Parts: sequence; C-alpha cells; structure tokens
Amino acid sequence: MSDPSASYTDVLIIGAGPSGLMAAYWMARCGVKARIIDKRGTKVFTGQADGLRPRTLELFDSMGFVHRVLHEACEASEFAFWGPDETGKLKRQDRNPINDISCSPYGNALLNQGRIERFMLDAIKEHSDLEVERGVIADSLNYDSNLEKNDDEYPITVTLRTLSEEEANPSVAYGGAEGVRNGLFRSNTTPDDWDDLIKKSKERPGNIETVKAKYLIGCDGAHSWTRKQLGIPFEGSTTEHIWGVVDMIPITDFPDIRCVSTVASEYGTMLVIPREKQLVRLYLPLHDVNNTSSSFDRSSVTLEMIREKAKKMFGSFSFDFKVCDWWTVYQIGQRLAPTFSKGRIHLAGDAIHTHSPKAGLGMNMSMQDGFNLGWKLALVAKGVARSCILDTYELERKKTAQMLIDLDRRLQPLFTKQQENGPGAISPDETLVKVMELTMSFANGYICYYGASPLVHKSSEDFSASLIPGERFLPAKVRNQVDGRAWWTTRLFESDGRFRIVLLAGDMRHDEQRHRVSTFSAYLASSGSVLRRFTPKGEQNNSIIDVVTIHSNPLEALEFFEFPEMLRPYDEQKGWAYDQIWSDSECAWDRHCQGKAYDAWGVDRMRGALVILRPDQHVGWVGNIEDVKELAGYFEGVLHQPNDVAKTANHVQK
Amino acid sequence: MSDPSASYTDVLIIGAGPSGLMAAYWMARCGVKARIIDKRGTKVFTGQADGLRPRTLELFDSMGFVHRVLHEACEASEFAFWGPDETGKLKRQDRNPINDISCSPYGNALLNQGRIERFMLDAIKEHSDLEVERGVIADSLNYDSNLEKNDDEYPITVTLRTLSEEEANPSVAYGGAEGVRNGLFRSNTTPDDWDDLIKKSKERPGNIETVKAKYLIGCDGAHSWTRKQLGIPFEGSTTEHIWGVVDMIPITDFPDIRCVSTVASEYGTMLVIPREKQLVRLYLPLHDVNNTSSSFDRSSVTLEMIREKAKKMFGSFSFDFKVCDWWTVYQIGQRLAPTFSKGRIHLAGDAIHTHSPKAGLGMNMSMQDGFNLGWKLALVAKGVARSCILDTYELERKKTAQMLIDLDRRLQPLFTKQQENGPGAISPDETLVKVMELTMSFANGYICYYGASPLVHKSSEDFSASLIPGERFLPAKVRNQVDGRAWWTTRLFESDGRFRIVLLAGDMRHDEQRHRVSTFSAYLASSGSVLRRFTPKGEQNNSIIDVVTIHSNPLEALEFFEFPEMLRPYDEQKGWAYDQIWSDSECAWDRHCQGKAYDAWGVDRMRGALVILRPDQHVGWVGNIEDVKELAGYFEGVLHQPNDVAKTANHVQK
Repeated sequence: MSDPSASYTDVLIIGAGPSGLMAAYWMARCGVKARIIDKRGTKVFTGQADGLRPRTLELFDSMGFVHRVLHEACEASEFAFWGPDETGKLKRQDRNPINDISCSPYGNALLNQGRIERFMLDAIKEHSDLEVERGVIADSLNYDSNLEKNDDEYPITVTLRTLSEEEANPSVAYGGAEGVRNGLFRSNTTPDDWDDLIKKSKERPGNIETVKAKYLIGCDGAHSWTRKQLGIPFEGSTTEHIWGVVDMIPITDFPDIRCVSTVASEYGTMLVIPREKQLVRLYLPLHDVNNTSSSFDRSSVTLEMIREKAKKMFGSFSFDFKVCDWWTVYQIGQRLAPTFSKGRIHLAGDAIHTHSPKAGLGMNMSMQDGFNLGWKLALVAKGVARSCILDTYELERKKTAQMLIDLDRRLQPLFTKQQENGPGAISPDETLVKVMELTMSFANGYICYYGASPLVHKSSEDFSASLIPGERFLPAKVRNQVDGRAWWTTRLFESDGRFRIVLLAGDMRHDEQRHRVSTFSAYLASSGSVLRRFTPKGEQNNSIIDVVTIHSNPLEALEFFEFPEMLRPYDEQKGWAYDQIWSDSECAWDRHCQGKAYDAWGVDRMRGALVILRPDQHVGWVGNIEDVKELAGYFEGVLHQPNDVAKTANHVQK
Repeated sequence: MSDPSASYTDVLIIGAGPSGLMAAYWMARCGVKARIIDKRGTKVFTGQADGLRPRTLELFDSMGFVHRVLHEACEASEFAFWGPDETGKLKRQDRNPINDISCSPYGNALLNQGRIERFMLDAIKEHSDLEVERGVIADSLNYDSNLEKNDDEYPITVTLRTLSEEEANPSVAYGGAEGVRNGLFRSNTTPDDWDDLIKKSKERPGNIETVKAKYLIGCDGAHSWTRKQLGIPFEGSTTEHIWGVVDMIPITDFPDIRCVSTVASEYGTMLVIPREKQLVRLYLPLHDVNNTSSSFDRSSVTLEMIREKAKKMFGSFSFDFKVCDWWTVYQIGQRLAPTFSKGRIHLAGDAIHTHSPKAGLGMNMSMQDGFNLGWKLALVAKGVARSCILDTYELERKKTAQMLIDLDRRLQPLFTKQQENGPGAISPDETLVKVMELTMSFANGYICYYGASPLVHKSSEDFSASLIPGERFLPAKVRNQVDGRAWWTTRLFESDGRFRIVLLAGDMRHDEQRHRVSTFSAYLASSGSVLRRFTPKGEQNNSIIDVVTIHSNPLEALEFFEFPEMLRPYDEQKGWAYDQIWSDSECAWDRHCQGKAYDAWGVDRMRGALVILRPDQHVGWVGNIEDVKELAGYFEGVLHQPNDVAKTANHVQK
C-alpha cells in the first residue's frame, strides 16, 4: 500500500503561526510523527499580534515557559477610558484594574508575537526533533475518504514545494515610510499570494515532494489555502474595516500612554496598548469599505498618515514618535467558517475566524484552537484515544469563535461611531466600559461554554460551584505534602498529554474520610480500575492517566507515607512519587497561597470530590469519591483499551 | 610603550567559575575590554555547588535572570532537624520554614552550578562579545608596580598557554564506580594539577601568548595559581575534613527527604539537600585528617562506601539509590588569605577562603566576591570611578569571609562530634537548630557589616531603621506611577553599573513636602548638581547616576506629569522616562505589594529620605532631602569629574 516515491507522516501541519505551533507542541510532547511547514522563510520578529489573556498564560504555565513571557512582557494592569468632556477636551472617564487574582494567577500581558513563537519553538525543541520547515508551501491536496475509517491508513496526499529564498522572504517586508519594517505583506486578510507563489515555484524544477499523512491541520491564516481546497466558505460581514497599527516609542504628555486605554474622539476610538521595551502600540480606525468593491488600496496608506491621525485623536495632548518598530494596515471583517473539519482534515486559527483586533483576542483564540485540537489529535494518532473525540473540536471551538465574533460586532460601533452621534447618544448600558466589563470573563478565557460530549460529562448534581464540566479547572495555589512548596495548579497539571484524576481527598484527619480515600485507592489498585485497563502493558501505571491528590487538612497533620501507596506510586528507579500529593494549606511565605482552594472550588472541605481533568486542564467530569462507575464510564467513552475490540476490528478491515 | 608581540586587555580574569563569571558580567555590562580564561575545556554540567541564598537570588534579579533560576531550581522552603530519641531511633526534632518574606522576595533555592554558570554566561552574552577562553592556563605573571599609579598603564604581564584537548578534559572526569561522572578531579581542595598542566603543555610549541593587562582578577580556586604567584599564604586550620557528596534519586521512606534536613547519628551528622529533577544531595562526614600528613588517599573512597555510610546514617529508614548523577569526595579545611589584593591584582572566591559545604555558602560567597569586586573594577577601568574604591573590596569582603569561616568552625563539632558525646552533651544554646537560627541573617545575606569607606558614609543620625549604610537596600515591592505594575526593587535597581539616587519623596499631597521635592529637583537641574558635574559631555544626564523616585502617597493622588521634570527626564528619541517614578501603594492583584515599603524601611511616610545606592544595591549614604552637600560629598570621594584635576595630573605624570 505504500508509495515509495512519497514520504509518510502521521500529522502534517500547514502554517507555523501561533495556532500551528500550539498543535505542533502537542505532537512534540506526545511523540507523534509530524511535520510542520510554513511558506515564510523566517519566523516573525516584530509586530503582528501582542495581547496575551490570562487563560493563554495559564496554558503557557502548563507548557513550562510562562516565566519567560512574564519576564519580557509588559504587564497591562490597568484599563483607562478617555473621551471628550462637555467642552470637547479629552478627559479620563474611568480607570480600573484589569487583573482579578480570584480568577487567575495571571493578568493580561503584552509581548510581540515573535517572542511568543520563540518560546513555543523552544518548548517543541525541548521535547522532540520536530522543526519548522520554512519556505515550503503545499500546492495540491488529495483526500481519499474511503481510507478514513482505518486509523492506520494515510488518506491525505499533499504535494509540497520548496520556495526560493526570494519567494519566501518578499522584499516588501522592509521598506515603507522611513525604511521601517512594516507588516503589509503578511497582514492576515490581504488577498494572499499563495497562488502566485505556487506559480512561480513551479518554474523551478526539483523542489517538490509528495507527502502522505494520516491527519492534516490547516493553520494557514485568513486566506487559508487548506480551507479553499476543502471548499469551505468563509461567511460573514459585507463591510470590512481598515485599521492602522503602529508599534513605536511615544513622545507624548498623554498620562495613560502606558495603560491599556481607549481614546474616543470625533475620528472614532483609538486603542492604546503598552508593550515591552518602552514600545506602545496604537490601533487607529481608518475607514470602512464595502468588501464587494475593491476600491480601497491599502498600500496607499503611509506611516505619516497614521502619525497624523494619531496626533488628531490625542486632541490637545502632544503626540509624536521618532522610533518606530513596525506598522501595518489591517483590513478586516468578521468571518466564520461554517465547518472546522472535514474527515481527517482540520482547520484552526484565522483560517476559521477573523475579526478586528479590538478585543485583543485573535492570537489567544488561535492558540487555544491549536491547543484544543492538538492534544486530541495527538492522542488519536498515537492510538490512545478514540477518534470520536476529534468531533468535539468543532463543537467546542465553533461556539467560542461565534461568541468572539458577536463580541467584535458589539464593540464595532463603540469604536467607530461613538462620536458621530455625540457623547450622549450611546445607551448607558452599551458603553465601552460596560461592554468590556460584561465580557471580561469570556475575553480573559475564564469561561468557554464547552458543551456535553464524550469529553465533557455534565453532572446531574452540583458537586462544586466552580469546577464545572467543560470549563477550565479554576487555578489555585496548593502545597506539596513532602517539601511544602506552593505551586499553582496550572503548573502542577503539566500539559504532557495525560488525563488526570484529581482526588480532592477532603480532610483525612477524620476516620470516615480516610476510609473513603482508602477505598478509592483500593479501587485504583484493583485489576478492573481505569489505570490498569487503559495503560498499555509494560508502561508505568500513570502513563495515560495520572492521579493527583489534593487534601484539605493542614500539611503537618499527616505524613506522606500515611497516604495509600496508589496515591504516591513506587518506581524501581526513582522511589516514591513525591510530586503526587498536595495540600490546600496556607503558606507562611507566599501570600498567594492561603489554604482556600477548596472554598474557591466550592468543594466540601470534609468530603472532597473526584474530578477528571482532560489534558488541557478542562474539567471532564466531577463526582463523589465513590462514583468510580461514572469515572470508568468517562474513560470508556474516550480511550481505547490496549486490547480494544473496536480497534482490533479496524486492523482486521485493513 | 607598547609591545607588538603582546596583546592588550584592560582586565584579565583567570577562572570562569561562579566568582570569575560574576566579575566578567560587570565587564560585559559596563563595556570594559576584558578577557576571561579557564583551564577546563568545558563548563561544569553536573554536581559542584548547588545552594542559592536569598541575597544571591536578589543579585540574579538585578542581573535579569532570577526567573530562569526559580523555574528550574528546587525551592527549599522548610528545614528539618532529625536526631536519635531516647531509644536511639531517628526522630524529627524540629521542622521550620526557611523563608521569611519580610526580609527578601526570595527563599533558598537549590540548583546545580552548571545551570547557574549557564545563566551567567547568557547574561554576559546578552551585553557583550566576551567569551570564556577554555582550555587556557596562565604560566607566568609579572607585575611592574612602578606603573600602577598611572591608570592608563599595563603593569601586568601574563603568559597564557593553550592546553591540548586531552589536558583540558582529563578522563578521570568520567569513571569511578558504575561509570558515573564524578567530581574527584575538580574538587576545589585537591592538590591541584596546574603545575603538571604547565609542564605538559610546554612540550607542545606554538600555543603561548603574552597578554598585558591593566588589572588582573584571580578566581582560580582553592589552589589558586594567582595567589601563589603573589606569595600570599593561605592560613587556617591544621585539620581537614573529608566529606562524601552524592547527587542521586533516593529510594527511601525517610519522610523529609525533600526538605533541607540534618540527620544526626553516632556516625556524625548528614546533610540532606533536595534538588531539581527529583535529585537529592547528601553530604556525609567521612573522617578528619591532619593536613600535615598526607596519609589519606581520597581516591580510595568509592561510591559504594558513600552509599553504605548513608544507609547507616538513615538508621531504621530504608535507603538506596539506582540513579546517581554525580559524586565526589571533598577534603576541606577552613582557610583564609590574609590579603585579597596586591596592587592591581585581586583574588576572589575559593582563592581567598575555603570552608566546608555545611553552611551552604561557598558558591554564594564566591559570587558575592566577584560581584563586589567586579563593578568597582569596571568603573575604575572605565575611568568613571576613583581607584581608591578598589581598597574597599578587601575591607568589605574579608570581614564577611572571616565571619563565614567562624560560622563554619562553630558548625563543625555539631556535624562531626554531636553523637560522640551523646545527645545530651551539647549545650542547649549551641544545638544545630539554635546556631542555624542565630546565623540565618548572615547566611541568607541580609546583613554583611560592610565598614565605613569612601563608598559607605555612616550617618551620624538614624534616618531609617532598615536602610543602613553598608547594608543592602531592603527589597520591597513598589508600583510604577504610570502603568501601575508592581515590581521588586531588586529588579528595578538593575545591575547596570550606575549609582542611584533614590529619592524617597514622602507624601506629596502636602504642599510643604511638594516644595521640598521641587527644591531638590531644582538642585538636580542646576549646573552644580552631581548629575551635571559627574556626567561626561555628550552623555545622558543619567549615564553615571540614575535618579529613581519612590513616593508614599497613593498612586491615584498625583499624575506623572505633576512631578518635576528632572525626576522623569525627557529624551529626544524616547520621550519622558516612565520608569523613574514609583509609589509605595497597595496593589489589588498582588498580595506581596502592600504599600508598606516605607514602614519596612523605617522611613517617615511624610518627610521621606534621600538614599545613595551603589551599583550593587548597597546603601552608600542616607540623609534628608535637603542634604545635597553630603550627597555631593559622597560622589566627590568616589567619582572622577570628567575634567578632574587629579586624573589629569595622572595623565601628566605619564
């Protein structure tokens, strides 16, 4: 069945931007045979996206590099709203903290996309030999749906072309006004140059390769070549909005220039974003165009025009800049792909949703797409998980994308039209301040509304006010039983591809509770337990499902060795697992660890609860410590048993 | 005057261990022409030192890489003391937190020296092209003291030899029991192989170079070749102690194996140090030798002997290991060089003091030596500071080294003899627990007792209970006036080679205080101010002395632009300096920023104070905001004026 002229890979990823790299991280982390290509000759270094929401930083923590981001990024701790007073002079209307430590360890942080990509590339390198193949495009895609039912088949055939250095590094990347590097060539909604690149590269011989893949992920941006090959439309608005964007070091007496600020005026509303290395980004609305006409030429916009517009919008405050790091012009409408997947081919990031940069969510949403799809596909490709979990990708991410686009539509008039109607014309419930406040939980990634599926078992009973199946596990700081260190759960629940049973063991100073925990541990040790059933022979008991215990009694009340051995498994090389037992105890030297995690989770401190965490730290199920049948039922619907009948049947079909 | 066959450098550093790299950091950071050589062919990768005290972590923060250390290191948060009970069975006698957040942002952390060196090397690379020349030794040193009075002369002549690969990477580095890499070859107190290396390398021609240097720093370990060339003795104990050290992953039911623990028994006291990557280090006393006899052969000790000793010392607890990362045998006495400097040649680290690893201070002290000497020498070499400040190196570091050795002597019997006399024989005031508690402030680096000198002006009046000339600036978290972010002062006061005037501006809501601050700002702007007098023409006003303001009123009470411009200086390229004004205000989303810095400093919230910080964050002087004469007096004693008469005289002499 194999084609000797083709190369084979399990997963091919087209596009090495934030969503593609997120997906690639999982392939690297889970040891899946994968390739990732990108048409550009280099990664991004300046400009592009820059906003990081708390939920994204939590993911980075679980991937092991949030400390690098926080060290370099600008922390956006306050949000200021400016608008004209009665006399038309700019005035601060409100200034509020953005961060809420009851919701996340992290606030909002700003750092250019190039550094984020660097950290992801480093994380990929740490775990594998996977490298981005740059200056490579796909120029044909063939999908044989007859093969898709057999996990071992390669239904996807793609032809790859290597570009010349010139093609992969268009000279327009440099230049523009004053020789500043600008982003016009790779703004994500310009008519793309993919077809031109294919045509040109065809003129050179000897640079093509046929690749056969089991799975394909298209992370190739708003003009996604992959999406077009699948014939999936990109539905949305008939009006597109033109935005000027500039990263510069401001010379201004505007007092909130280092806060996230909106500045409303008769010219629309400008967004001010403080950044690393004294930079500030401005987003300025230029004008709207009807996307059926192609009358507007983006390349007619110059850096000088953006500078002049900003000067006007800052009103009586002085404004100018001498150092410009990057600038571009965005032309963006709200668009959504009606379907995210076709067979074994999936799309992520800008390929499935576009919207304005106003909500500061583009890169976050794209990375979360790649993160959501990546672990599912990695586990399916490895034969660990059932392929039905791939259906949850669209289920979970499409709703989120739709909400994002709705938010963007809601914000649109507040940015472009507010001042046309005069300061008093907006409904008091629909001001920028109000809308931002109302949508904060969604924007920061605290709530995502993932629906019921094999991966999300909604409980009939409420075991916990804040541990809600489908939502992320609410982060808290807990202390290690053995060494007393305080860690955020976001770091503790490392993104290593494993499901987790989180045993909230309650207060084990009480005999009855201790007995409940012992009974559960005996279940784990039994031959019918999910650990034994779903772990392949010869592997550690925790290679597929990890068990982490967090009890509620004081650290000092129990010794590590008093916990049942199944909760701190023994390894012949490394002794007992000291990292598996934690306590919701106060920490004298860490004011963020207050021994109140159970309270935040809404879990009974005495009786505890049992939680299934997906590899992405989302809650899959919550129950009582006795509910081992439901626990088993969850994993039966999601994982293959190593001697699984259904899987064997597939092999036989072949 | 120049020798065409020689190469010239301002500073030559011999030895690229922790103290040498610290000194090299300053050369890189301040742009001083320097070279650094090391006899070994590679840096350290496993083993060696591992303990990091809070003060060292504060320095790392000011150097920009503490986040990398904290991410990888094991945080040692608790200290446990074990000893035999009445029946002779091991029992936990005490377990206490190590960290005290009122003293430092950081606790104690453990990470192998190889990673620390990596981070320092990266920091050096970030700021310069300085690279360690490895596999290179010095084989002759000539010092012409007639030249030392002229800053521009090169009184030092050193011959460097490049070693063969074999010489630089002795094969004994690998091997020992079970093929584990051991540290026998580079333990810092073995009879050194320098002379052998010189002899061998002389057999190969064409590998020598003559270097002329203005300054030389010898960081070449306990058997310092540099120290020997200077004829400086190494005075100290007649008894040396033999310690076995092993880094392994323990298989044990000893419950505090992941805490810093002492375990006392009839065989002496063992030290347990938790480490990164599940490793634990054990220090085991083997025996003492009279250093006049050379009867003890370290190479007779095997890993098996260390394992067996540890098994015995853990008493009835099980103990073994299968994974060993590194092991060695130390032979150490307490020794101190009577003088640290001779003319333009200085010694640092193990070259001037040795002691046992019991106090966990060796690497810390050595790095602090290099840090203390480095900035002084860099500023003198650049012509910024007067050479008299170099005299403060020995003044400051010798007292600290003596205290360390005294501490080590005090701890010695508690580790080796306790059980010989039975558990009851030690005075209750002189138990390990008590001694450790009493010496914590010194060991953690909170107090260092630097004496009066041109760099430390002791105040006649107490302006502050905790800002004491000679001691480090007590770290606190403060908030930036413009963006509201909360930063530790250890990060804010970056180690960039500048002195700082810290204006504790008090409560500026009050007219009188505002007036005091304005008057001080007017002084700064005047032509006679220290900023104008000591800044070379054409440089930014803050290139030698930086001014940082920390006021005590709430952040919201004043706008950035209400502060006098001298406190937020204007730059034509980059606008106003937003990083210069901070507030001692509470931060809603950071529980470690409580708006209580003034209280911790013991500074009047209304009237504030004026502080001179040295480039190493030590307080140089404290006074009232009006005391500009004393302020100027300090800098007059320390810095050259660009048109300095004394300096010109030197040039004329030449």
